[in-house]
Amino acid sequence: MDKLIAWMNGVYLPLEEVKIGYQDIGLLRGYAVFDFLRTNQRVPVFLEDYLQRFQESAAALRLDMPLSEQAMRNVVRKLVELQPQAEMGLRFLLTGGYSEDAYTVQEPNLIISPVPIKPVPTVLPDAVKIITYPYERQLPQVKSIHYTMGILLQQEVKAANAFDVLYYSEQGVSEFPRSNVFIVNQQGVLQTPANAVLKGVTRKQVIQAAANLLPVEEKNISLDELYSAAEIFITSTTKKIIPVTLVDDRVIGAGKPGPVAFQLFDRLSAAEEDYVQQFQW
Amino acid sequence: MDKLIAWMNGVYLPLEEVKIGYQDIGLLRGYAVFDFLRTNQRVPVFLEDYLQRFQESAAALRLDMPLSEQAMRNVVRKLVELQPQAEMGLRFLLTGGYSEDAYTVQEPNLIISPVPIKPVPTVLPDAVKIITYPYERQLPQVKSIHYTMGILLQQEVKAANAFDVLYYSEQGVSEFPRSNVFIVNQQGVLQTPANAVLKGVTRKQVIQAAANLLPVEEKNISLDELYSAAEIFITSTTKKIIPVTLVDDRVIGAGKPGPVAFQLFDRLSAAEEDYVQQFQW
Repeated sequence: MDKLIAWMNGVYLPLEEVKIGYQDIGLLRGYAVFDFLRTNQRVPVFLEDYLQRFQESAAALRLDMPLSEQAMRNVVRKLVELQPQAEMGLRFLLTGGYSEDAYTVQEPNLIISPVPIKPVPTVLPDAVKIITYPYERQLPQVKSIHYTMGILLQQEVKAANAFDVLYYSEQGVSEFPRSNVFIVNQQGVLQTPANAVLKGVTRKQVIQAAANLLPVEEKNISLDELYSAAEIFITSTTKKIIPVTLVDDRVIGAGKPGPVAFQLFDRLSAAEEDYVQQFQW
Repeated sequence: MDKLIAWMNGVYLPLEEVKIGYQDIGLLRGYAVFDFLRTNQRVPVFLEDYLQRFQESAAALRLDMPLSEQAMRNVVRKLVELQPQAEMGLRFLLTGGYSEDAYTVQEPNLIISPVPIKPVPTVLPDAVKIITYPYERQLPQVKSIHYTMGILLQQEVKAANAFDVLYYSEQGVSEFPRSNVFIVNQQGVLQTPANAVLKGVTRKQVIQAAANLLPVEEKNISLDELYSAAEIFITSTTKKIIPVTLVDDRVIGAGKPGPVAFQLFDRLSAAEEDYVQQFQW
């Protein structure tokens, strides 16, 4: 009765039956894009933003999207109705398809699948520690499946007792493997990197939520600016905002979550509530 | 009767039945390594080198190899016997496994599968044109499945009527997406990049075959050195040696395959013949 139901190439089927021929260059060559959203009371929160980004990722890898945006909405609607839980993750995956020469893009396989998630925080989560690492994702504006470095660095993250790893390059810090970073600098300006980042949907919401609260800048942020920030936080689809008080064992600000993180968390939660109330299929 | 037979996690099965649950982080996160060899008269040519590189790739991504080297040899032996053709490709694929959180490495899935290939050239193939592109693979010493850029650049390769694309960075040229590069410089020295390259098995054989023929150096090669080379060629498991006479529309050397390419092709073919004659399971 409480089976998770997925959708693959036009067919609804139990999640555990979703299999893919291994000749798909998604698997043989890592050639695939995806996206991930979350439902709240069976409403896909900020659906339009996720659909648009998914479409942009597909276009960047020159993959043909098999469904129109309206058809995607219809599948999402039915999938959401079919799930046993009103709060779920939904993953979109579009692969390069079955390829005879294992190299040429073919007809993509599209899979939309439910993902059980923990309850989303209703108050600002506890502060965490992060570490930094010199790396920049390839095609960072594309949500490709390429997470080799993030997964490889998990041992370092665990060894440091950290929550996640923040990438940086000569241009400054950029992003976490699966989320974005914000700082509040000593002048009270909210800043987030503009380049070499995936433009997160929560990131966008936070920028909007900060209007009338404090100045916002999208700009390069050096490691030194990071270390000397008054506040740092992570933005993520599943956690909204997570305060950071330790970076590479340096204490940030007062060593506890700051007022901006609390205020933006509440504003973000309110924006989500508004979206859920007003959402129509 | 002439079905291709693969091996997956201990089971021999028809190739078209090899499917993988989509929860494998090989597909969801591009977290997998592979390798590819070729058989000649049912002998897996230079088997030890491919097995060693596959093991090293797995270790670099912290994936546990489910089989010992001897067990791998046993599977390869049986697979080679089962194929309808005596000349085949064999692909090894090791994935990060089914992962509940779609992020943590689990028990890997190991697949060894036959790949139909065209007959291998017995004389030096015709010369080709290549283009160059500024890019460096992540973890270049690892044969990961990450070919996003190589596949994405196929349109540029086709538009330029070229055979392949050679990556370069500030350190100079490095490699093609699936093969290595050599030049013979104006002083008659055979050179191949040392850094940011996958150490090809054919590359290694060419270096060995060149002994007593001309001096060999593994070193950085600038784009200018490439353009002014007397000879350029590609080394590859399936084509052995492919001469290059056009790079970004610049004519290389005399505009036709050079003597070193011919000589090394013959030496490489002889080394393969020796290997096949002496091979024992």
